[in-house]
Amino acid sequence: MDELLQMGRTALAAQPFSRLLGAELIAFRPGEAELALTIRPDLLQQHGFVHGGVIGYLTDNALTFAGGSVLGPAVVTSEYKINYLKPAREGRLVARATVVAPGARQAVCRCDVWMVTEEGETLCATAQGTIALLSEPRPRK
Amino acid sequence: MDELLQMGRTALAAQPFSRLLGAELIAFRPGEAELALTIRPDLLQQHGFVHGGVIGYLTDNALTFAGGSVLGPAVVTSEYKINYLKPAREGRLVARATVVAPGARQAVCRCDVWMVTEEGETLCATAQGTIALLSEPRPRK
Amino acid sequence: MDELLQMGRTALAAQPFSRLLGAELIAFRPGEAELALTIRPDLLQQHGFVHGGVIGYLTDNALTFAGGSVLGPAVVTSEYKINYLKPAREGRLVARATVVAPGARQAVCRCDVWMVTEEGETLCATAQGTIALLSEPRPRK
Amino acid sequence: MDELLQMGRTALAAQPFSRLLGAELIAFRPGEAELALTIRPDLLQQHGFVHGGVIGYLTDNALTFAGGSVLGPAVVTSEYKINYLKPAREGRLVARATVVAPGARQAVCRCDVWMVTEEGETLCATAQGTIALLSEPRPRK
Repeated sequence: MDELLQMGRTALAAQPFSRLLGAELIAFRPGEAELALTIRPDLLQQHGFVHGGVIGYLTDNALTFAGGSVLGPAVVTSEYKINYLKPAREGRLVARATVVAPGARQAVCRCDVWMVTEEGETLCATAQGTIALLSEPRPRK
Repeated sequence: MDELLQMGRTALAAQPFSRLLGAELIAFRPGEAELALTIRPDLLQQHGFVHGGVIGYLTDNALTFAGGSVLGPAVVTSEYKINYLKPAREGRLVARATVVAPGARQAVCRCDVWMVTEEGETLCATAQGTIALLSEPRPRK
Repeated sequence: MDELLQMGRTALAAQPFSRLLGAELIAFRPGEAELALTIRPDLLQQHGFVHGGVIGYLTDNALTFAGGSVLGPAVVTSEYKINYLKPAREGRLVARATVVAPGARQAVCRCDVWMVTEEGETLCATAQGTIALLSEPRPRK
Repeated sequence: MDELLQMGRTALAAQPFSRLLGAELIAFRPGEAELALTIRPDLLQQHGFVHGGVIGYLTDNALTFAGGSVLGPAVVTSEYKINYLKPAREGRLVARATVVAPGARQAVCRCDVWMVTEEGETLCATAQGTIALLSEPRPRK
């Protein structure tokens, strides 16, 4: 496994909330990140669909990893916008994020979230957002 | 407790993912909803802050409840946009959503998410989105 | 020229504001629309760049045409989100919009806005939004 | 007239596109800006409503002025999201923007756009966005 993916997996494993939801980093290259999780009963809402908050989590995190792939690990999600397209019910969710416009201090990224089952892939949500460096560089002493 | 709040709490309790995160509906009136949760270690990311996905979940759900307060219970989040403002670390998160523009089939809503501690309240995120009726009316035969 | 492009150009020519700004529909196919305009002095802001409002106009209109290419002509922009990436100064602006997810009553679309000069193309803005049918179908008499 | 409003009006008058559309700065205080324009035939689309691009322009500019009221004049719109609520037809448009969260390098702001006629005010659009300092501070020698 390459070094960037290894670093990304270590970062993901250090997020307690990502462990709670069972997220996995399945691809991580400069300008791209893919996160996945297996749909399970405690991630649903009252109609039997995956809760929008789970899809939002996956989107947010995939955007941050994509931005971090070009800006370095000290990044945060500054803002994003998501459109929900189809409900997700079963199988796996895969969020694929790419950098649209890298900059010195921030990167504008997009993310599509797919439900993947044996029958194929369904686009469940699409998002666009800004990933920013975590903080101002501090003056060294 | 009034009837609308009781109905809202029943709906929230029927969401496995909301139970997993420990969300509570603390206010629910026509045009308004407030959701809260207590920050705990498994909701954090690697820097010790609440994961953005938790704040996104709370925003999404508060927007949906606010929209549902005027449209009825069969609603979904169609889309939203969120700006993250300050990290949240401790105490409780409270998401306060209001309907800005109710319509026949959808409602445009806003939501602010606050970290509430003994020292006071800090605005952590602000969002705007659209809540829509769940399904199309079917043609009658 | 094909029929859809001809219809689109007629619709664009019927918009006084589009005539004021000098917009042209340069491509129009099912799921895609491209609008262009030539940068001129009265479209600028105080620093010599194209005013963000011009880029916003082009985005909004390209999204609407893309949505209209699958939903029919009676559509409006319901909402959109735009990230400004680079300032535009000279040459032409070209907005390329595509439908990401068509539905029965609305379509989620994306749009990129490019500055095109003899030196090449620069991505100036990227957007995502929802185009909706203008109104409820009225009962026929 | 106070000094801040005077400065703002000078900045607005230096924008050729704002002069083309006839925008006026009617209020400008720390954290707030109001822009207005009179609806006229060449600002409409094909159905007789104000073109969404005009409302987008007014929103964008009001957000920028609000952000500039706390960050200083060298600001740009980084990104925004707008929901269109009601069509505007006649009278005046007034965009009222406020700073929700001021920061050192950027400000998150909201804006409501109203149609104002003799009969009253109608909310036509609502937006949320980020205004950022125009450029990086350069290291001193």
